[in-house]
Amino acid sequence: MRLFARILRPRLEATAHCDLPCGVYDPAQARIEAESVKAIQEKYQANEDPEFRSRAIEIKEQRADLVKHHLWVLWTDYFKPPHFEKYPELHDLFNKATKAAGAGGAKGSTDPATGQALLDYIAQIDKIFWETKAAA
Amino acid sequence: MRLFARILRPRLEATAHCDLPCGVYDPAQARIEAESVKAIQEKYQANEDPEFRSRAIEIKEQRADLVKHHLWVLWTDYFKPPHFEKYPELHDLFNKATKAAGAGGAKGSTDPATGQALLDYIAQIDKIFWETKAAA
Amino acid sequence: MRLFARILRPRLEATAHCDLPCGVYDPAQARIEAESVKAIQEKYQANEDPEFRSRAIEIKEQRADLVKHHLWVLWTDYFKPPHFEKYPELHDLFNKATKAAGAGGAKGSTDPATGQALLDYIAQIDKIFWETKAAA
Amino acid sequence: MRLFARILRPRLEATAHCDLPCGVYDPAQARIEAESVKAIQEKYQANEDPEFRSRAIEIKEQRADLVKHHLWVLWTDYFKPPHFEKYPELHDLFNKATKAAGAGGAKGSTDPATGQALLDYIAQIDKIFWETKAAA
Amino acid sequence: MRLFARILRPRLEATAHCDLPCGVYDPAQARIEAESVKAIQEKYQANEDPEFRSRAIEIKEQRADLVKHHLWVLWTDYFKPPHFEKYPELHDLFNKATKAAGAGGAKGSTDPATGQALLDYIAQIDKIFWETKAAA
Amino acid sequence: MRLFARILRPRLEATAHCDLPCGVYDPAQARIEAESVKAIQEKYQANEDPEFRSRAIEIKEQRADLVKHHLWVLWTDYFKPPHFEKYPELHDLFNKATKAAGAGGAKGSTDPATGQALLDYIAQIDKIFWETKAAA
Repeated sequence: MRLFARILRPRLEATAHCDLPCGVYDPAQARIEAESVKAIQEKYQANEDPEFRSRAIEIKEQRADLVKHHLWVLWTDYFKPPHFEKYPELHDLFNKATKAAGAGGAKGSTDPATGQALLDYIAQIDKIFWETKAAA
Repeated sequence: MRLFARILRPRLEATAHCDLPCGVYDPAQARIEAESVKAIQEKYQANEDPEFRSRAIEIKEQRADLVKHHLWVLWTDYFKPPHFEKYPELHDLFNKATKAAGAGGAKGSTDPATGQALLDYIAQIDKIFWETKAAA
Repeated sequence: MRLFARILRPRLEATAHCDLPCGVYDPAQARIEAESVKAIQEKYQANEDPEFRSRAIEIKEQRADLVKHHLWVLWTDYFKPPHFEKYPELHDLFNKATKAAGAGGAKGSTDPATGQALLDYIAQIDKIFWETKAAA
Repeated sequence: MRLFARILRPRLEATAHCDLPCGVYDPAQARIEAESVKAIQEKYQANEDPEFRSRAIEIKEQRADLVKHHLWVLWTDYFKPPHFEKYPELHDLFNKATKAAGAGGAKGSTDPATGQALLDYIAQIDKIFWETKAAA
Repeated sequence: MRLFARILRPRLEATAHCDLPCGVYDPAQARIEAESVKAIQEKYQANEDPEFRSRAIEIKEQRADLVKHHLWVLWTDYFKPPHFEKYPELHDLFNKATKAAGAGGAKGSTDPATGQALLDYIAQIDKIFWETKAAA
Repeated sequence: MRLFARILRPRLEATAHCDLPCGVYDPAQARIEAESVKAIQEKYQANEDPEFRSRAIEIKEQRADLVKHHLWVLWTDYFKPPHFEKYPELHDLFNKATKAAGAGGAKGSTDPATGQALLDYIAQIDKIFWETKAAA
């Protein structure tokens, strides 16, 4: 059913995210950066060259910051009081997800498991996001 | 009493905010930008020159974004689960404060009352912040 | 068939885009910003308030810059010489697409038709992108 | 006396810093970032993990850049010719302070003494700043 | 001989400017942005379309910020105490030049004369810069 | 003699680069950053201090990004269809030049030869750029 819903939602329909607001939001923005974080961690583990590792750590830092930013935008700009009433776990979920992108999570670690944990949180947010879009 | 407490809190003790983390956080960062937002709104109201007004709107946009950013950092990086347990209103307070800096608040309006409302939210966060620092 | 392929391509497989490189790229990043550009143009046309319009123009400027950036990253970092051999129109397509995001296109205009033209270019790039991924 | 002066200067009066100008300036912005620089240096000395150290150096780089930026804004935007007449050492003080945040100072070193030297320069600027505010 | 070298020195010999430091500095960076500021002012005067004018003001704001940034970098990172001894007017010149890029100058005005005044200051700095390079 | 040299190196003719567009473009912007990249690589090779090397890699990353950005702006904003007709190699040249600034080139390497290769590409672009300006 979910896959079916996805077919019907053409890729170009999605999104909205600036704070005019334009009304276009899409958790894909956070997810893509988090995919990058995890991929960097995997490449880091597979390559012991110190120059490569320095670059990897620095780039991962930026990508993790972008994950946080995209999640914060969703939390503040997209989600409204009725959403928080319907999904009382939402505040906590976003707080954990952004922390998972931070120093105690994927930003402060080169273990791909932390990148995956971050992706898992984003998947939970993504699920709720599309439920609210479907209900709108 | 509050003033007295402030005397005893030397200015240089404050702060901490990057996500190493360095441990330095200070709601003053959000407050200063919010002061700027309100001051820009007041200057906007007092000056009908269209060039000045264009500049004011554009600069306020950036300052409001900075308010959001500094508040998000506090919410995700400084505050920890025990804080959220002790102050159950904290998630909602941060969500309202960042919304008050957004399109439905001081970013989308040139009315200084919206800038003041934003400052009031930040003052509430500031109060809780220093209570948690005092309790640490 | 294309829809079917899309079903089998789970959303989390996508993307790669930093220049470590992490190997994650996704034209969705450019598309989401372009959706925003077009949505802003539509809202601009529907709202004559000068403050709103000033904000709209400024925000559209930034979003159009992001479109360009995401497209440039694909053109330089993702696409390789064999791709340019197989798709000889690719250089010109990217040049036109980024120009369509610029002053002579959606950045310099508030007509939603320019936003749509930009989206159409991105859809062409998206199609080629996924063909190269499928062929990899 | 200084503490007393601080009581009379309510916290919310402070600040002003964008170049509308909004009229809000506060050396606290530079100081908070410099506190961060010094805290990072201390954490660097206490932690030999190479990944942590890479992150520390990269983050310190950014924080030191922010110190410079906030100081430059004060020097160019807040201070006016009459201030430079009254405090003839001010140009040199700002030049030394920003250099102390640079490659020859706290940016190029992990020794917390360089972070403290930077804070000392900022304290001198802060003192003059509040004198000029009191005299205004 | 050196002059001759300069003629033959194709434009590619010049400059260095990051704060590693890499040792590459060039006032051309500030000048190019200032040229842009003045060109924007001229286009603004020649075009009364309100959308164009909104864009012009916003873009000029950014370009003027870049001028300031490039000048600050020269003042703090390139110029050393012996330079300030030899050119005692240098502090004041930089302060005036950066102010000329600010709200009281080319940033706060659409009059091309303010853009030209900014270019004149930069030309003075450029002259001293190359004298110090020749003397090094 | 020196003045004469300066005449031959016309300073103010150059430039144009924002996307108003202001009409000011200058390959010097890309070249200066690329000079910085190469200088950083040379300093990296001459200094084995791990802190210095971490800083060098991080700063080079940013400078290489700026090279790419300035080249992309020229390719999309300055060059027009008639230029691409007259110089059919131009698309490929820009693609190679930006790749030479990326992970497979000067960004991913500390070998100054990669910095020089990048400068050589920029010199080719610079030559064509000035030919088109002369023909305009």
